[in-house]
Parts: sequence; structure tokens; C-alpha cells
Amino acid sequence: MGGRVLIALGGNAMTAPDGSASPADQRRAIGRAMTHVASLIRAGHEVMLTHGNGPQVGNILLKNQLAAHVLAPVPLDWCVAQTQGTLGTLIMNALERALAPEPVRVATVVTRTLVDPDDPAFREPVKPIGQYFGEDEARRFERHGQTWRRFERGWRRVVASPWPVEILDAPAAIALMEAGYTVVAAGGGGVPVVRAEDGTLSGVEAVIDKDLAAAALARAVQATELVIATDVPHALVGYGTAAARPIEEITVAELRVLQAAGHFASGSMGPKVEAALRFAEDGGNRAVITSLEHIGEALSGNIGTRVSRGVER
Amino acid sequence: MGGRVLIALGGNAMTAPDGSASPADQRRAIGRAMTHVASLIRAGHEVMLTHGNGPQVGNILLKNQLAAHVLAPVPLDWCVAQTQGTLGTLIMNALERALAPEPVRVATVVTRTLVDPDDPAFREPVKPIGQYFGEDEARRFERHGQTWRRFERGWRRVVASPWPVEILDAPAAIALMEAGYTVVAAGGGGVPVVRAEDGTLSGVEAVIDKDLAAAALARAVQATELVIATDVPHALVGYGTAAARPIEEITVAELRVLQAAGHFASGSMGPKVEAALRFAEDGGNRAVITSLEHIGEALSGNIGTRVSRGVER
Repeated sequence: MGGRVLIALGGNAMTAPDGSASPADQRRAIGRAMTHVASLIRAGHEVMLTHGNGPQVGNILLKNQLAAHVLAPVPLDWCVAQTQGTLGTLIMNALERALAPEPVRVATVVTRTLVDPDDPAFREPVKPIGQYFGEDEARRFERHGQTWRRFERGWRRVVASPWPVEILDAPAAIALMEAGYTVVAAGGGGVPVVRAEDGTLSGVEAVIDKDLAAAALARAVQATELVIATDVPHALVGYGTAAARPIEEITVAELRVLQAAGHFASGSMGPKVEAALRFAEDGGNRAVITSLEHIGEALSGNIGTRVSRGVER
Repeated sequence: MGGRVLIALGGNAMTAPDGSASPADQRRAIGRAMTHVASLIRAGHEVMLTHGNGPQVGNILLKNQLAAHVLAPVPLDWCVAQTQGTLGTLIMNALERALAPEPVRVATVVTRTLVDPDDPAFREPVKPIGQYFGEDEARRFERHGQTWRRFERGWRRVVASPWPVEILDAPAAIALMEAGYTVVAAGGGGVPVVRAEDGTLSGVEAVIDKDLAAAALARAVQATELVIATDVPHALVGYGTAAARPIEEITVAELRVLQAAGHFASGSMGPKVEAALRFAEDGGNRAVITSLEHIGEALSGNIGTRVSRGVER
């Protein structure tokens, strides 16, 4: 029997190779992704799944914006919740198909993630989401309380991406896992909520990085391994230079040094590296960053960027 | 201690009194509804919740349609899945608030409902959903494979509303209930899926009546009571006539007679009466149709249309 593994599925597990995300694109990509997940389950691992939702939220926002003259746009936390429903359903159907004729118990838990209302991310939203628009449209959406910034390719909405403080619905995911379910949880990083002074929760306009949320979920469910499935087999040192080389086995201390030296871009590999570090530092056995096709081999220790605390020196 | 109760929340639990369904309207209505649910939980009942989603799906469809020149509309099963995420989140937040400072374990399970691909409903879609449009727009949406019909007030999309054969994710809901959770499941009747000959599941363009799905879910989770919460305290005999009178205690045999005599309109009270009958006929202890404010009293047997098998004669 293998260990308890949390797999964080990136965008490429849910969109076409060119990034498009029609319903058919999503269904096909998830079907492919689940064949890889199925082999981990067949190998005896206890698997929990989480997933990103960038292109899906992008589509929902675009519709919100095109309909804004008729219907007030729904808040961003709603968009995340919407994608938990759709992607959870697609993942459940595809995983059952990939494991057939073996039956599998699979369940999706709508998951809220607690964030801190005083998180500095709320003071200066910087995470760009959704499509580019012209200045006139951007100004119009700003009147709905949104923040828009000018980028090279046009205007784009920017939102807060606060730190995941607690995966509030992790206990439900654990209860299902202990009843034998492969659980899909914390999709899109979880629906962001804040807690008021009287203890009550409410949704907030933000998106939570799905890899950081995955690290928090992995620790909450006491996973031994966190696998961050992306579109490259390894994180690289010296990415974009002639001296680029893959990172294979590495300790958290060594990886923190590379991180501090600026080897990992903030919008792409940065959060994955930080998530892997957090998981290993917080007591996880091993975090792996690799491509979806290699998640099985990566758990056998043959490929991928494999992060562990290493020997105390 | 009370029994195991499935509460089916109707549209008025999730929209403003005038039927509008902005995010704020939904949040307020659900907050109010959960105060009634909270008192059942405080009284010791083991509660599971399900809910409708008509106005919410209407909003999503409208956005789909206004954006159809840019993005292909997502299928109807996706719309249902989306509302399970948003309404589940709102219900969880509101129920926790209504019970504070007492803690409550509450969870939402993304739920698929199996339907029969040979259900006659697929041959002739008759359930109208979403907004009215002009003929030109209707013809345009028909090119996306939709069926539109002319009504008195304009053109409206009609879809199949097949019979719920099985609530596929009921076992996950049961596992959570047995772990002490108040579970939200089968929202909007569940995401409709069909099973292919090789056993694999896929989503299908349909909406399932939420009261009929509630009856199926209630039986699957062995609820003793099914409460269908609506906007009137009783089903009526002779609705719309001078002789109208409320139905209080009634047996399934007596109610089947009234149903056969055409006392219940197909678009409104009809499915609620049928759901109550099914539940009681299939072994449920009692089904109650009443208004949201009266669900507590109704379980004490003082108000509402209360349907049971009654004494064998």
C-alpha cells in the first residue's frame, strides 16, 4: 500500500494544450488527467485531489462582464464556488471511467478557505484574472467595485490573492476519506471567506493560490506526500538561461536558498515551490513538482523535483 | 431527539419576496431560511438539506446567452453544478451563523442524479427555464442545439425534466451524516447524468425536479420525514375556487384520489404532492408540505399538509 497523497492538478489538466477551455476541452483534458490519477489509486495510494480553475473563472467573469448591463456581476467567491461544482462533477465522472470496471467511491466537497481580512493582499490587489479589455470597459467595471490595471496587452482585472489560513471544510474531506472515498476538495484554492468578530463567515472577493491551498489541505488531512502536477517534469534552476538545469532531490534548506536567489517566477513556479516548501517544513514527508504524466514515477522517486526536510545537519 | 429529516428548500428560501435573485437577495433569503432550519437542529432533529435553483440557473443561462457570440454556452448540467457550489456555500455560512455560538458540522456534497436516457422527457422537452426572449434570439440559440417554444409572453427555452432514477452521491452524503454533519446535497435536483452501456457516466442537458429528487434522496438516506418547504402553509383542495380548503392530515390513498381528480397544478403543487406521495409510499414515515416558517410546527403535527400511509383498511 502507498501513502496518503494529495494531488494538485494545474490548468493543463483541465484545458486543451493551447489553453482553451470549452466544455469539450475541459472534459477531454480531465479524462486524460484521470488516467494518471487512476494508476496511483490502482497502485494502492490513498488519493485526495484538488485543482486550479483559472481559465474556468476567466470564462465566468467574461460572461459576467458581457451581461453586466442586465445582471449585476456575481462576486468572485461565487465564481470559485461555481467551478468547484462543475470541475468536481467532471473529475468524478472521469475518475470513475478511468478506473472502470473497478468501482471507486469518489466525492466532491464544496470547500471554503479562511483568509485574513487584514491580509496585505486586500490593500493592494495584484493578481490579474480573466480577459483583457479596453480602457472604457475597464472603467465601467470599476464602477461595480472592481480594480483594473493597464498591462502591455490591455486592461485586466486584478484581485487580492490572500494567504490560505485554514481549509475550513477539510474535516468533511477527512471524514469522507476515512469512509473510503477519493475526495475532490478545495478546488480553485477554496471559496475565500473571512470571519467577522462575532465568528460568522462570509465570502470575500479574492482568489487563493491553488498550490498554497493544496499545501494547507495536505497538512490538514495529514497527507504524507503532496504532488503538484504541472506541465513540466521539474522546476529549473536558472530558468531561461543557458545554464538551466532541473532540480531533482532537494532539501527544504537548499530550496529556500535557490528561492531567495530569485530562481522561481512569482506568477508560475514561485507558488509551487513555496507550497512544496511549506508542506515539507510543516511536517509533510515529501512534496513533488512534476508533470501530470509523471506523477506515478515521481512517487517512486525517479523523476520530478522532490522536496523533503532531508537529514538534519 | 427527533428523527432524521430531509428538508427541501424552495425558491422562496433563496430569493427576495418579489422573486429577484441578486447575490444580496440570495444571501438575505438564505439567512432567513436558516434560522428556521436551525431551530429544527436545536430541537434535536438530524437534518439534511436540499434546495431548488430555478432563478439561479435562470441568471446563469441569461449570461450564457448574452455571451454566446464570444463563448459557447455551457451545458445545463454545468449550470446545475455551478449552483450547487454557490448555494451550498451560502447555506453553510448562513446555517453556521444561525446556530452560533453553538458549533455545527455542515458540509455540501456535489451530487449527481442518474436519469434514464430513454426517459420520454428527452423526446419532448417541456419544462420552461430562464428568461423570455424574442424570436430572433430564440432561433439563434436553437443553433446551439437548444429547444425554444413560443409562450404568451415571448419565446422561452424548454428542456427535458426526466425522472430521478438514483441519487448517485447519496452514499457520500450518508457517510458525512453518520460522521455528524448536516449535509447539503442534490441541490437543484442534482447534476443530471446518464450511464452508457459500458457503465460510464456523463452529464446530460436536463433539469431534474428538486422535489422528486428530494423524495429519492430522503429514501436513500433513510430519512423518517420529508419536509417540502414552500411559500404556502398547506396544499389546497379546489385551489382557485370558492370551495378551496387546506389539506391537513391525509393518507397516500386519499391524496392519490385528489391528485387523480386534477387538484394540483403540474408546474407548482403537482411535483410536491407527487414527491410527498412517493416518499410515503416507498416507506417514509411522513411527508409534509408547508411554508418555511412552519417547518418546526409541521414536524410536531400541528400544521402543514401531512402525508402518511395511514392505517391499512
